[in-house]
Amino acid sequence: MIILVLNCGSSSIKYQVFNFSNGSNMLAKGLLERIGLSDGILTHKPTGREPYKIVTDIPDHTVGINMVIDALTSPEHGVIKSVSEITAVGHRVVQGGEKFQKSVLIDENVKKAIEIYCELAPLHNPANLKGILSVEKLIPGIPQVAVFDTSFHQTMPDHAFIYAIPYEFYEKYRIRKYGYHGTSHKFVAHKAANLLNRNIKDLKMITCHLGNGSSMAAVRNGISVDTSMGFTPVDGLIMGTRTGDIDAGVLLYLADKEHLNLAGINNLINKQSGVAGISGISSDMRDLEIASAEGNPRAILALKMFAYRVKKYIGAYTAAMNGLDVLIFTGGIGENDFNMRKLICSDLESLGIIFDQDVNHNVKGKDIIISKPESRVTVMVVTTDEEFVIASDTKSIVESLK
Amino acid sequence: MIILVLNCGSSSIKYQVFNFSNGSNMLAKGLLERIGLSDGILTHKPTGREPYKIVTDIPDHTVGINMVIDALTSPEHGVIKSVSEITAVGHRVVQGGEKFQKSVLIDENVKKAIEIYCELAPLHNPANLKGILSVEKLIPGIPQVAVFDTSFHQTMPDHAFIYAIPYEFYEKYRIRKYGYHGTSHKFVAHKAANLLNRNIKDLKMITCHLGNGSSMAAVRNGISVDTSMGFTPVDGLIMGTRTGDIDAGVLLYLADKEHLNLAGINNLINKQSGVAGISGISSDMRDLEIASAEGNPRAILALKMFAYRVKKYIGAYTAAMNGLDVLIFTGGIGENDFNMRKLICSDLESLGIIFDQDVNHNVKGKDIIISKPESRVTVMVVTTDEEFVIASDTKSIVESLK
Repeated sequence: MIILVLNCGSSSIKYQVFNFSNGSNMLAKGLLERIGLSDGILTHKPTGREPYKIVTDIPDHTVGINMVIDALTSPEHGVIKSVSEITAVGHRVVQGGEKFQKSVLIDENVKKAIEIYCELAPLHNPANLKGILSVEKLIPGIPQVAVFDTSFHQTMPDHAFIYAIPYEFYEKYRIRKYGYHGTSHKFVAHKAANLLNRNIKDLKMITCHLGNGSSMAAVRNGISVDTSMGFTPVDGLIMGTRTGDIDAGVLLYLADKEHLNLAGINNLINKQSGVAGISGISSDMRDLEIASAEGNPRAILALKMFAYRVKKYIGAYTAAMNGLDVLIFTGGIGENDFNMRKLICSDLESLGIIFDQDVNHNVKGKDIIISKPESRVTVMVVTTDEEFVIASDTKSIVESLK
Repeated sequence: MIILVLNCGSSSIKYQVFNFSNGSNMLAKGLLERIGLSDGILTHKPTGREPYKIVTDIPDHTVGINMVIDALTSPEHGVIKSVSEITAVGHRVVQGGEKFQKSVLIDENVKKAIEIYCELAPLHNPANLKGILSVEKLIPGIPQVAVFDTSFHQTMPDHAFIYAIPYEFYEKYRIRKYGYHGTSHKFVAHKAANLLNRNIKDLKMITCHLGNGSSMAAVRNGISVDTSMGFTPVDGLIMGTRTGDIDAGVLLYLADKEHLNLAGINNLINKQSGVAGISGISSDMRDLEIASAEGNPRAILALKMFAYRVKKYIGAYTAAMNGLDVLIFTGGIGENDFNMRKLICSDLESLGIIFDQDVNHNVKGKDIIISKPESRVTVMVVTTDEEFVIASDTKSIVESLK
C-alpha cells in the first residue's frame, strides 16, 4: 500500500511517500516552495538516490501537486510507475476544532468543517483545504484522510482549556485552548513508552516539541491533559519569532505607544518577538548557540529565557499531573541542541530529574535516555516523525473501509 | 513615635495610625470613599471604640486627608491630641520602576520619579502622588516615606523579568516584569520564617497572595526571584475580574470580532474577566463557594480554574528554585477560603506537599501550619499586614535620619 502525505502551507508543500507493502519504507520526500510567486522550486528526494531540483513558476497548489505526481512517476527520478499505485493521500490539517478528536476520512462534511475552522487558523487551514481540493481534481476518487494538529489535545479537561474571560466567548466563538503539534506529541509519547517497554497508560509524561515553533504537553496515561499553545500557536513557550506567554497589558501599552493596530500587534508577537526579538541576532537557535559561546550577552539572555520558560512548564505540568515519569525532548531543537537540553534539565533534582551531562553531550537526532540510572524521571531524546503518523493513520482508516 | 500610613487610590484613601512608643499599637484605621464624587464617606475606626461615619462631599485628596487629620485629633473620636504628634507619614506607592529597590524618604527627586512612573501605573501612581502632595500642604515639613509594591521584586534575574519581545522596548520604555504586592510577599515570607524559627536565607518559599487581586512569588533565600504579575497587574493568576495569563491571540481575535479598541480590550481583561467572567455570577470567591456548593457548574469551573492556575505556578516556581520548603497562603482568599486552599494543595504529593485537610478546615485569618508533620514542604496560612510594613519602614527610615 502506497500512501502520499501532504503538508500544504500557503506558499509551500512538503510531501512524503510511504510504501507499507513490506513493513514501512519511505520512498521519497520533497518540498515545493514559492507557490504563487515567481521561480517556484521543487526539491525531490528519492530515498537512496540523488535529489534533484526543478525551478519553474508554480502558480497554485494544483499545479504544485501535479508536479509532485510527475516527479513521483518520472521514469528517471520516480519511485512509482503510475499515480494509480497511490492508495490514499493523508493531509496534515492544523485546526480540527472540537469536532475532530482523531483522524478522519475526508468527505463533504469534513471539508465543510475544515473550511469553517479556517477562521480559527487563517494561516493554515485554507492551504490545507486547497491541497485536499487539488488532489480531488488530480486523482479523482482517491481516499483522502485528514490528520489534525489539534486532535490529540481534545482530551484536555475544561479547567485546562477554558480561558478566564467571559464564558460567552467560548459559547459564541469556541474560543478555548486547542493546542497544536498534537501529532508529534502523541507520536513521541507512544514511541518513548515502547522504547522503555512500558505501558503508556501507566505513565505521566511531558513532551517538549522544541523547534521554530515550540510547545509542550502533559500526557497522563497516554492522553493529553494540558499543552502550552492555546487558541493560537503564539502562546506558551518562547519561539523563534513568537513571544509565547506575555502580559496582555504589555501589548496594550505598546499598541498605544507605537501606534500599532491589530495587524501590527499580530505581526509584533508572531514575527518580531521570541529569541529573535530578545537577541536581535537570529531566530535560529544554532546562531544563538554560536553567539552565546562568543559571549554575546543578548544571545545568552535569549537562551536562558528559552530554557527558563521550558523549566517552568516542566514544573507546572508535574504539578498538574502530580508527578512525572518521563520527560521527552523532540523537534529540531529538542533533538539536536544538546546545550539547550542541558540548560533546561540542570538544577531540577527536586523534581526527580538527574540529568546525565556526559551522555547528553553531542547527542543529535537519535533516540536515547539522557538521565542517570538513579533519576526518578527518565529523560529522553525521541526523534519525531509527523509524516509517518499521518501515513499510518491514513493507512489504518483506508484499511478499515474494506 | 506615631506613624500615619496612607494608601491613596484615585477615589479612596485607606489609612492607619501606629504608635511605636511601646512596642507597636494600631491606634486607628479608616477609609475615605467617593473622593471627587458627591456624598463622600469617611469611616473612622479608633481601636477598641465604636467606629463612626461622616457623609459629606470630599472634592479632592487634600480635603480628604484633612478630614482624616480632624478625625484623628477630634476630642471625641480622636487618638492623638494634635497633628504635631505624628512623626512621619508612610505612603503605599504602587510603581517604583527600576529605581527603587527599597523604601525611601520622599524628596523632590523621589516625587519626580513617582510622577515619571505614573505612565507605568496610570491607575495608581497619580493618586499616590496626590496623597504625598496633600500631606506636604497640610503638615508642612513632616518626613514622608514611599513604600513601593514593586521594590521587593527588583531582585529578579533578567531571564525572569525580560519579555520575549524586541529588546529595544525594554531599553526604550522599560517594559519588563515588575510584579506587585511586594510588601505583602515580603512581609509574609519573613513572618513565616520567624514563626518557623528558621533563617529566611536558608529557605525556598512560595508566597500566594490571593485576594481580589492575586499574585504569587518565588522567594529564595529571602529575595524574590520570580512573581506572577508582570508589567501590569493583569498578568498571572486568575483574579476577581482580571484574566491573568491569556493567549494574546485570543485578544486580537476578540478585538476583531467584537470591534473592541484598546480601551475595550483593557476593560475586558481587567473588569469583565477572571472568575466573574467564567462564572457569570460574581467576582467574590465567597459567592462562588456558595454557588459551587449548590452545584452551579460554572461556579465549580471558575473555582477549579483558579486553583489549577495556582497549582501550576507552585510547580513552576518549585522548578525555578529547584525545590520548595515553605508554601504560604495570605490575602483575603488565601487566609480565609479553606476550600480553595484544599483545591490547590490536594494532589501535590509529588512536590512534597502533604496537606492536612482536617487542620485546614475552617481556618480563617490566623497563622497556622496546614500540612502534615511528614510533609517535606511546610504549608502555612500567614496573615498579611501591608500597612504595618509601611509603618515599620517609615519608622526605620525616620530613625536613620537622626
